[in-house]
Amino acid sequence: MSILAVGSIAFDTIATPSGRVENVLGGSATYFSLAASYFSEVRVVAVVGDDFTIEHEKTLKARGVDIRGIDRAKGKTFRWGGHYLDNLDQAKTDFTELNVFEQFQPRIPPEYLDSQFLFLGNIQPNLQAAVRLELDNVRLTGGDTMNYWIQRTPRELAETLKLVDVLLINDSEAKMLAGDKSLPRAARKVLAMGPQALVIKHGEYGATIFFREGAFGVGSHPFRAPALPIEEVQDPTGAGDSFAGGFMGYIASQGQLTREVLKRALFYGGVMGSFAVERFGTERLQSLGREEIEARFKVFRELTHLE
Amino acid sequence: MSILAVGSIAFDTIATPSGRVENVLGGSATYFSLAASYFSEVRVVAVVGDDFTIEHEKTLKARGVDIRGIDRAKGKTFRWGGHYLDNLDQAKTDFTELNVFEQFQPRIPPEYLDSQFLFLGNIQPNLQAAVRLELDNVRLTGGDTMNYWIQRTPRELAETLKLVDVLLINDSEAKMLAGDKSLPRAARKVLAMGPQALVIKHGEYGATIFFREGAFGVGSHPFRAPALPIEEVQDPTGAGDSFAGGFMGYIASQGQLTREVLKRALFYGGVMGSFAVERFGTERLQSLGREEIEARFKVFRELTHLE
Repeated sequence: MSILAVGSIAFDTIATPSGRVENVLGGSATYFSLAASYFSEVRVVAVVGDDFTIEHEKTLKARGVDIRGIDRAKGKTFRWGGHYLDNLDQAKTDFTELNVFEQFQPRIPPEYLDSQFLFLGNIQPNLQAAVRLELDNVRLTGGDTMNYWIQRTPRELAETLKLVDVLLINDSEAKMLAGDKSLPRAARKVLAMGPQALVIKHGEYGATIFFREGAFGVGSHPFRAPALPIEEVQDPTGAGDSFAGGFMGYIASQGQLTREVLKRALFYGGVMGSFAVERFGTERLQSLGREEIEARFKVFRELTHLE
Repeated sequence: MSILAVGSIAFDTIATPSGRVENVLGGSATYFSLAASYFSEVRVVAVVGDDFTIEHEKTLKARGVDIRGIDRAKGKTFRWGGHYLDNLDQAKTDFTELNVFEQFQPRIPPEYLDSQFLFLGNIQPNLQAAVRLELDNVRLTGGDTMNYWIQRTPRELAETLKLVDVLLINDSEAKMLAGDKSLPRAARKVLAMGPQALVIKHGEYGATIFFREGAFGVGSHPFRAPALPIEEVQDPTGAGDSFAGGFMGYIASQGQLTREVLKRALFYGGVMGSFAVERFGTERLQSLGREEIEARFKVFRELTHLE
């Protein structure tokens, strides 16, 4: 089934201990779409400038991504520059040029209105809510946010969280959102804000999904999926969005919304995140095979499963 | 089979957001022995002062721990005071009084010389090596160390690492020991220093065991065990030593030294660590039942295993 993804498309300039690239195609919607495309049909809503070329289009089209929802505005595409130090755990921003992204108003093509799955990438919470409210057939909404919105637009974010079924954020975002430094307590508080489930991403330590009591099945036990210990991480940019793409893509490929499906989705999230960081930008996500993905899923399983 | 554990016995004064305790029985050998005692016979080599009472003895004896190797020196027992802030992830030391521990020379009773398993708690590396070299029947040696020895006695530590089969340390210790900020690369470098396997403890994110190529079976894939997301951690003191106790205790209870045994041991390490932090000091480790332990092992398994 189809996933509608709304988010950013950007040109990234990235420096890591492994090298440097300039103006490569990136942004949350790009990483998400490419990762999800291995599991489901993906439709993108985003905005680009007149520097977005046919070559850039091809990167998405080659993976079958529906780009009719990409708006072409006058001006330049969103640009971001950043670098990572030795431990690769956090990006330091060198520059941010919002350009056409500053005035982004998501416009949903009529052909997208029957979408059953929705991913609200990390954009202004009011825009996230507006997209959700335009769609009548959504079975599951995934959402992302960041410290910037948690601090600047708490009330708008609170309204949006009531519309999100599964929120995907990282440890520091969860702690900030809940105002609690204990991760399990923070998880409980975030679930009380609306979502049925909360995925907290731990970077190189994997991710945990916390469920509301009774959501997607019986019980309230959390579940953890690992991340792969990768010696040579070339570029961590987009790991979280690729995780979300694998997670949502797998869910949309399944008929049922059960706990077991969400658990496996957590593993596929980790799998797609692990591929993303092996090369700069979206390179690795452009030409994977389903066999490679299944082989890595097996590695993830062997990494944590007892006989 | 019996495990010989050498390490510290201390009286701890601990403050956490949940409360405060004064002069409670602690130290690496204490936490290790209590945790391991649920799986195997444990023999302790340590030193205490004349303030170590029959009541303290009873805490260990009640769990069947053999305390003939506890040396009674003139003076006071090692004392440590520390506190934890909100996120509970690191102890801040308030005071350290080494007392009789400063002159600790491990003395192994003749009855301990047939020990087949050995755990070298976090003491001066030369002392660790001396204990190992006195024993002729050891099948597996586990060891711990800390930043202090990595920085102050690198050469002595390097010699000791050649005698350790499984080293158990945390993330920051592994990175410091290897001089590498990438955890998987650090793991490879530490394994090149001697150990057959390396357990890296990630605190609330669990632990990973890395194997030397071919050690304990085929392949070189790592394995990860989770930690339980616990809302109310009362006191993290001793979590690492309790982890080591569960890990070594389970291994010693098994006939074979296979990869599968070490993987399960990693789960039991997490299980015992998770019990330890639920109450102050060693309280929770004093009166567990084997059924409780197996029930929590099942919870850990469900936390990470797909159907």
